[in-house]
Amino acid sequence: MDFITNEKLTIVGAAGMIGSNMAQTAIMMRLTNNICLYDVFSPEGVAEEMRQCGFDHVNITATTDPEVAFKDAKYVISSGGAPRKEGMTREDLLAGNAAVAKELGENIKKYCPDVKHVVIIFNPADITGLVTLLYSGLKPNQLSTLAALDSTRLQSALAKHFGIEQYKVRNCCTFGGHGEQMAVFASPVTIDGTPLLDIIGTGKTVNGIALSCEEWDAMKKAVTQGGAAIIKLRGRSSFQSPSYLSVEMIGAAMGGEEFKWPVGCYVASEKYHHIMMAMPSRLTNDGVYTKIVTGTDQEMADLDKSYGHLCALRDQVIAMGVLPAIDQWKSINPNL
Amino acid sequence: MDFITNEKLTIVGAAGMIGSNMAQTAIMMRLTNNICLYDVFSPEGVAEEMRQCGFDHVNITATTDPEVAFKDAKYVISSGGAPRKEGMTREDLLAGNAAVAKELGENIKKYCPDVKHVVIIFNPADITGLVTLLYSGLKPNQLSTLAALDSTRLQSALAKHFGIEQYKVRNCCTFGGHGEQMAVFASPVTIDGTPLLDIIGTGKTVNGIALSCEEWDAMKKAVTQGGAAIIKLRGRSSFQSPSYLSVEMIGAAMGGEEFKWPVGCYVASEKYHHIMMAMPSRLTNDGVYTKIVTGTDQEMADLDKSYGHLCALRDQVIAMGVLPAIDQWKSINPNL
Repeated sequence: MDFITNEKLTIVGAAGMIGSNMAQTAIMMRLTNNICLYDVFSPEGVAEEMRQCGFDHVNITATTDPEVAFKDAKYVISSGGAPRKEGMTREDLLAGNAAVAKELGENIKKYCPDVKHVVIIFNPADITGLVTLLYSGLKPNQLSTLAALDSTRLQSALAKHFGIEQYKVRNCCTFGGHGEQMAVFASPVTIDGTPLLDIIGTGKTVNGIALSCEEWDAMKKAVTQGGAAIIKLRGRSSFQSPSYLSVEMIGAAMGGEEFKWPVGCYVASEKYHHIMMAMPSRLTNDGVYTKIVTGTDQEMADLDKSYGHLCALRDQVIAMGVLPAIDQWKSINPNL
Repeated sequence: MDFITNEKLTIVGAAGMIGSNMAQTAIMMRLTNNICLYDVFSPEGVAEEMRQCGFDHVNITATTDPEVAFKDAKYVISSGGAPRKEGMTREDLLAGNAAVAKELGENIKKYCPDVKHVVIIFNPADITGLVTLLYSGLKPNQLSTLAALDSTRLQSALAKHFGIEQYKVRNCCTFGGHGEQMAVFASPVTIDGTPLLDIIGTGKTVNGIALSCEEWDAMKKAVTQGGAAIIKLRGRSSFQSPSYLSVEMIGAAMGGEEFKWPVGCYVASEKYHHIMMAMPSRLTNDGVYTKIVTGTDQEMADLDKSYGHLCALRDQVIAMGVLPAIDQWKSINPNL
């Protein structure tokens, strides 16, 4: 019975749909034999279900006590915010979830300052990740947020359009915010080996199918609204895909397979700073590191716009008093 | 990207909580690259979530059309009944779900008579499995029902009682019905190597802990009401554990790892016949075969009682007109 690690993984929000799926996914991926389920509502029912799967060699505990949950945790994944309801944008969730993120950061600082990596997925994840990072005192490369779902949505949409298998669509990525202002990049993408930029609006085909500029614009828009589309189709917020991808992320941070999609990370470049957003990145057991982002002029302009949108969101949270002014961040977290 | 098979697996009830979990579980177990999601409500949202996990090399289709769903299916798992609500027993579901099972059997006969194995998990599974088997025309060893959940509940309860890791509790099994009249067998069980029968009511301890007759009786009762306990704890019917175990079953039928728990199967012995119930069994790519059941006098009496209860349930379904009288079964399914 091999596990990637035997260190403690704490799943926050474990009583919910995403958190309970994370528990099962983490066990099935054999990440660790030491899983603690934490929620403000008792996650004991989820723990019971996991035990009743008959998984061998896994110790699953459940608690509503943050001290028990976070003590000695080496890895944390949190879906522990309010879910998005039909008609809400990710940003609507801002107020409540920013406060939840602050408390999460404080719990990490208090009970598990030696945590190795934290993955945040509750929305707006760029902001809740930033708030958690600040109050946790962690280094920027120790915390990442889920952003991959936009990239996989793009991959799936392109595969469907061209009628090809999904894995033949490569290097899909969206950068910037995880909200509707994300920047969808075409330039890295290849469709069965052909660069997407050579296809859009050129009449060039793959599998006999072209992609007009209008179709591409509609697809980009659909990708940014992919979460709302799932709510319409399922009558509930997506939970399996965010869970699966975020568990893949923490697995990569444990030293498992490298994560193959962009992640949201703290950015401190000249152009983009004091923000978390999706970037070309690498997530391994060394944590998350960003790479230089390149794209067409339009893509870079879209990214600038997305960054501006995130800064405005961040400033809203500062105005709410949940985040202090930027010049005070270093006094709370010297790593920023 | 290895899969156990590339033959078509159809998941019935795929829009629901169990069915959608089955889809994810089957993909994560790498059972097949060919998965069809079927439900009377569109499972397209679930298919979208699966695609948005970014799984490589898996083709996921979704349909509400039984012909599309069952055509050429080689494996079928069905959770496609109504879920149990708080306060309902599994038997309360009888009427509606027996009719659903009849339709399922007819669809199998019509569209995929060459199916290799079918796993039924909607409750009361002993009855819905029997009805499906009759109308599908399949051989008894080609259809099994989920019964393992009772055994894993027993394993989990014993592990908790003795404060030991769950895998150290071995050979847990319940036989007979999957409802509250199941027979919980102590005689095969060992606790960290010590036979459970040597412990119950003897004062003998494992890990310093004894188990009185009263405690054992209470534990048996709790196991038979394990489903209701999950509903109380989670506020919803269990879905992760039945999904996980049933996908393990179909994986075993595909030639994957042998299933390690009892399954519900058609029984045609002198003593027990014209019934489906949990038996000591073997489930491999040869299908399901029963073994002889042995136990203490009390255990065998419990099993007789459980069998009697199932016969009464079956006769209720015959009285409802969903099943014909037993002497007509052979004319519908010559394999019975």
